[in-house]
Amino acid sequence: MKKALAFDIGGTKIYSTIIDETGNIISDIDKFSTPKSIEGIKEILKNQIEKYENEVDIIAIATAGAVNNENTAVIGSTGNLVQGYYTIDFQSLSNKKVFLENDANAAAWAEYKIGASKETSVSVLLTLGTGVGGGIIINNKLLKGKSGAAGEMHFKMYSDKRRKCTCGSWDCFEAYASGTALKKDAEEALNDKNVTTYDVIEGVKNKDEKMTAIFNRWENDITLGIIGLANLFDPDCVVLSGSMAQFVDTMKIEERVNNEIVTAPTSIRPAQAGNYSGMIGVSLLALGGLE
Amino acid sequence: MKKALAFDIGGTKIYSTIIDETGNIISDIDKFSTPKSIEGIKEILKNQIEKYENEVDIIAIATAGAVNNENTAVIGSTGNLVQGYYTIDFQSLSNKKVFLENDANAAAWAEYKIGASKETSVSVLLTLGTGVGGGIIINNKLLKGKSGAAGEMHFKMYSDKRRKCTCGSWDCFEAYASGTALKKDAEEALNDKNVTTYDVIEGVKNKDEKMTAIFNRWENDITLGIIGLANLFDPDCVVLSGSMAQFVDTMKIEERVNNEIVTAPTSIRPAQAGNYSGMIGVSLLALGGLE
Repeated sequence: MKKALAFDIGGTKIYSTIIDETGNIISDIDKFSTPKSIEGIKEILKNQIEKYENEVDIIAIATAGAVNNENTAVIGSTGNLVQGYYTIDFQSLSNKKVFLENDANAAAWAEYKIGASKETSVSVLLTLGTGVGGGIIINNKLLKGKSGAAGEMHFKMYSDKRRKCTCGSWDCFEAYASGTALKKDAEEALNDKNVTTYDVIEGVKNKDEKMTAIFNRWENDITLGIIGLANLFDPDCVVLSGSMAQFVDTMKIEERVNNEIVTAPTSIRPAQAGNYSGMIGVSLLALGGLE
Repeated sequence: MKKALAFDIGGTKIYSTIIDETGNIISDIDKFSTPKSIEGIKEILKNQIEKYENEVDIIAIATAGAVNNENTAVIGSTGNLVQGYYTIDFQSLSNKKVFLENDANAAAWAEYKIGASKETSVSVLLTLGTGVGGGIIINNKLLKGKSGAAGEMHFKMYSDKRRKCTCGSWDCFEAYASGTALKKDAEEALNDKNVTTYDVIEGVKNKDEKMTAIFNRWENDITLGIIGLANLFDPDCVVLSGSMAQFVDTMKIEERVNNEIVTAPTSIRPAQAGNYSGMIGVSLLALGGLE
């Protein structure tokens, strides 16, 4: 059976393991803190590749940032990784082929192949974590756009410049739907810089009224964003992934979305492919492209 | 050369003509006011089809409302047409095959085949008229979604319920970017129910400060919507069509969009396929599907 040496390169952590062509993780997960230098990142990749490349058919990297349509390089900058990250020549790190895909796109592919959106043809995946990522599948193919950067969840939630987004523009979905946004909602509502996302989640559990109102506002913003996406893509389903997805009520969101969209009813589903869906998805993509 | 008997069925007018497989209009344009009854609409279609069906290879109908993925029927209701319009059995009106497509999708296809988005592979078309329509082309195919209704421009511009949309929900792009929205902007700014879209456009021409501010706010809302679409689709271009498109400054919008998106630069272009792009596009789609 064909195998990939898989990586997931994020703003805080780098994961690595070996995954087979059915999407099974067949080795331990190695974990590293993401270095703050290009050389540091390359060092980790090189060490892992030296150790394992003879056991695998391809190197498969899920990464923060947009990946070109040839799946060979990161294009443009990514806020959460070291400046100049996109200049890394990934192919030079291995004798095997190196295949890259954006982490949210890769997660969307994993959900489509073995998870929550299996057997659908049009789906939208949202990763709700520190930031918000998006991966869109249309007619059984990833939506990549002209340069490979499609699926960025930076559409407006307000038109009157309320909250700056990490992308430099204002009021993007990411700035209202991420974990960071929930903290920001709480800071604004309570006028307290020290309140955390954890405080809000705990407050909701303890039926604290203020915390529940803050949480509901955040969930409402996520719902409104999904309404727009459902009207644009008419998807079979919207999959919610990432560390924050466990806290939202997908049934409640689905009911509201289907009440307000002009397109046919859709379904809102929690992700099923697990915490390593990025590595699984990019491995399936990479191995699927091999003869 | 193959030919289609083309129709464009809108909320106020029905157009009809004959179009050849290169997109040329080869007969007069017949114009009718859209009847307020299903029978009235069927009557117009039947009369035209009886007159011309022997001269053509297929009947091609661009229509308001979503069209199914088989291009045989309208699905769901359309605000601007008589209730129950979607129950019309279009195929029963002719001995030739009857092919339908949503009017904005058809216009997008015309721009892609013979107009502003020719030789691109990913494009978004916006029709800015009484309402706002959308047609999206991805990898040289219309985005239809699971049921055929994709491309609806009902994503939020605000999250705090400011303006009701024709779709029944709140604050959709359509409610801020249409001609009707420009009138609404003016009504709100001037506290005058009688101000018209024409008044605003004339005011801008005469350098009236208030009218210019109203217009700029409207153009700004269109720009913000396009920023979201560009981040989602990473398109080669965004084409602006419809009666209101002539008033916006595409160069100014393009500069602003490219300053704010996280995806690669795109181009904003005025439509080139003319007023009958809906009929041209649906004819090219219908004739393209014939052996």
